[in-house]
Amino acid sequence: MTTYPAKQHFVATAARLGADTGVILVYGSETLIHPDSDTEYEFHQNSNFYYLSGVAEPGFAAAYDIGTRTAILFVPHVSADEAVWIGVPPSLEEYRAAHGFDAAHYTKDISEVLGALKPSVVFTLPENASACNAYSLAPVEKLRAAVHEARVYKDDYEIEVMRRANQISSAAHVTLMREARQGMIETELRGRFVGLVLAQGCSYEAYGSIVAKGRNAAVLHYTKNNMALDDARDVVLVDAGGTFGNYASDITRTWPVGPKFTDNAREIYSIVLDMQKTVIEACAPLKQWEDMHMLAARVAAEGLLRLGILTGDIASIMANHVVGYFMPHGIGHLIGIDTHDVGGYPAGTERINKPGLRYLRARRQMQPRMVFTVEPGLYFVDAILAEAQATPSVAQFIDFDVVKHYRSVGGVRIEDNIVITESGNDNLTSECPKEIADVEALRASAYA
Amino acid sequence: MTTYPAKQHFVATAARLGADTGVILVYGSETLIHPDSDTEYEFHQNSNFYYLSGVAEPGFAAAYDIGTRTAILFVPHVSADEAVWIGVPPSLEEYRAAHGFDAAHYTKDISEVLGALKPSVVFTLPENASACNAYSLAPVEKLRAAVHEARVYKDDYEIEVMRRANQISSAAHVTLMREARQGMIETELRGRFVGLVLAQGCSYEAYGSIVAKGRNAAVLHYTKNNMALDDARDVVLVDAGGTFGNYASDITRTWPVGPKFTDNAREIYSIVLDMQKTVIEACAPLKQWEDMHMLAARVAAEGLLRLGILTGDIASIMANHVVGYFMPHGIGHLIGIDTHDVGGYPAGTERINKPGLRYLRARRQMQPRMVFTVEPGLYFVDAILAEAQATPSVAQFIDFDVVKHYRSVGGVRIEDNIVITESGNDNLTSECPKEIADVEALRASAYA
Ligand SMILES: [Mn+2]
Ligand SMILES: [Mn+2]
Repeated sequence: MTTYPAKQHFVATAARLGADTGVILVYGSETLIHPDSDTEYEFHQNSNFYYLSGVAEPGFAAAYDIGTRTAILFVPHVSADEAVWIGVPPSLEEYRAAHGFDAAHYTKDISEVLGALKPSVVFTLPENASACNAYSLAPVEKLRAAVHEARVYKDDYEIEVMRRANQISSAAHVTLMREARQGMIETELRGRFVGLVLAQGCSYEAYGSIVAKGRNAAVLHYTKNNMALDDARDVVLVDAGGTFGNYASDITRTWPVGPKFTDNAREIYSIVLDMQKTVIEACAPLKQWEDMHMLAARVAAEGLLRLGILTGDIASIMANHVVGYFMPHGIGHLIGIDTHDVGGYPAGTERINKPGLRYLRARRQMQPRMVFTVEPGLYFVDAILAEAQATPSVAQFIDFDVVKHYRSVGGVRIEDNIVITESGNDNLTSECPKEIADVEALRASAYA
Repeated sequence: MTTYPAKQHFVATAARLGADTGVILVYGSETLIHPDSDTEYEFHQNSNFYYLSGVAEPGFAAAYDIGTRTAILFVPHVSADEAVWIGVPPSLEEYRAAHGFDAAHYTKDISEVLGALKPSVVFTLPENASACNAYSLAPVEKLRAAVHEARVYKDDYEIEVMRRANQISSAAHVTLMREARQGMIETELRGRFVGLVLAQGCSYEAYGSIVAKGRNAAVLHYTKNNMALDDARDVVLVDAGGTFGNYASDITRTWPVGPKFTDNAREIYSIVLDMQKTVIEACAPLKQWEDMHMLAARVAAEGLLRLGILTGDIASIMANHVVGYFMPHGIGHLIGIDTHDVGGYPAGTERINKPGLRYLRARRQMQPRMVFTVEPGLYFVDAILAEAQATPSVAQFIDFDVVKHYRSVGGVRIEDNIVITESGNDNLTSECPKEIADVEALRASAYA
């Protein structure tokens, strides 16, 4: 790949600031140490700073002079003593060229360089405000809003990095499906996944992986991952993605512990797959994201009616948000440098306080170059079903005896990452099988 | 294994405080979030808190009433709403019993519980001082010193956990030696290592793994891990260990990219192995740790004299600390909950400002139940050798033409973790081969 388009990101951000002059000044993250210890936390770059610099190392800063369109990288100076231990670092010129900046200086010279620019106003981020208090600052929410909105639209470079993150993570999911056997511990699957994506160049897991077998899949934020895949009839839900080139992937697959889905699991899985394919088919410019959530809910309602889990007429089921008790989370979210990326609720947009929709992480019109996850799921969460049973307007549509019959399925989720295009969307997770026949073929090979 | 001996650790710490009354009150770490994001840093428990509680989850606190020897665990309360997402947590009584405490309460009741104890004085840690400012506090360095000194002596439980961390990590090192082939990228080895230790129940890497081939091994804190093992004549240095049950392991092996060491690499490796075995043989109660460093340096001097890298008499070579230019780091460090564990320099002990010794991380008398790394190495670091050449008192003992002959070896280090026993020591890393014949047999199988 070519150079990360850091300067273009400054340009896009400045355009959204609506300012003709002034300087943007931002600082990257520093190394973080465990308390009373010399052990470092694994380094994570500030996401806004990565977007504006493409630098994934600690101790950097960057500035952009809006009037002259000059991007300046600030590099921490490494002393000769330090270089003995960490190696000789690239020169200022090498850093400048590698990151596509117009100029590079050492961070110790920031105030001198800024002073020479004589900015009428300095734009910075809330997290950098204290470092910039020597300057005449614009309200920090201005730059934050501009960077967030710019980050929503991914350029070709970013899309290709996200495709690669998806390819690497998809291959790791396939390896799990092909190799996991009854008796393994959930954490073995997580370990294998992490090892595979790191070995292919990912920096880390994009988020704490979930490997949840059987009823554990009904714990939506399950992260213990410490139980054995002891029952061949269970499904296991694997929600895991690697971060590649500082961009996240976020993929979920659910598959049987044994070589085949049980009838019950297959029925639930089929509905979720139908929800997902229907929504992906529908994703296109100008559509509203919350409508995708409701579309998934409608497909779910139809499926759950067929199984007898729901009863009654579909219009009333939809009006009473009954599906929200089986899919308590949102249909998906923006994804980019952050797994739950910024920009989901543009200024002035409110959350909808209804079951399921309440936790929807985005509510806006789809536009080309936005990247979303599409992650419908159906779960049998005892606490939520108890709430449904205690809510007459909802309980009237649910046959709790039939629910009992499916309870052991725990939960099913299928999650892909898609980029909105001019004509519809492009599925970045196309290399990760989800059709029942393909999944069962992989699972059979684990026992061959 | 049985219950983590948290209460015994409170008892051992209180004994070192020299107080008959008062309450120890400590807080664990909270979840840490990336700035302007909802992504969590991987959770790491405060090491002092883990020692006193055995709790590896966020949001806990613990107290110990010295007079009545009562250990109290404080548990964060999980609301019914939260339980829907993360599952139903254990009860207070389940937490109390699992961690071997005398009582358990919710953290929201800390001030009420503390108030009932009416402590004359509260001992806390520097990192918890602000959370405890409602109490009459003893100087915070008192508890810190007491906990640090208590942590130096590992009990049977801790030693067995550390043995397991070493076994898991040793097995992962063996897998790398058995499977790594010419052409692989350093990061593939790191990914494979991390995956293997996570799959066996480790929580994370104990520190940023180093996988350094050829000349990269001369960069002592090399963490890029992005180059290919392109030359079969190179050695690759792998410094990697998993954290199991919150205790670190820290293991280094150096082995040929091809099936066999070159003559040059074998000669350097043999000296380092000799250094390591000589030091391990010598480690026993009442010996001084800095003497182990000097013992390694003496064995190195003899070896480097044999190769012709050094010339002159050994007494002068030792007196001028010439080996410090080939082994710039210390012979090893205490290890426990932290990789570089606390207690290396007891109050009143100063560092020795000489090449090599300057960076020694411990200087004290060995005693049973201390766990140390023994990690001699020899490196050809251009910047350090230039310094040696510019220092006449050192340069006179070095034949720089012979150095040039060995420069491509880069660096060799061999690191085990040992626990001091009554009669000598017990090597926790005994399952990780280091003899040349064993290493070459593993490397040959990679190409079989
Ligand atoms: Mn997601
Ligand atoms: Mn070490």
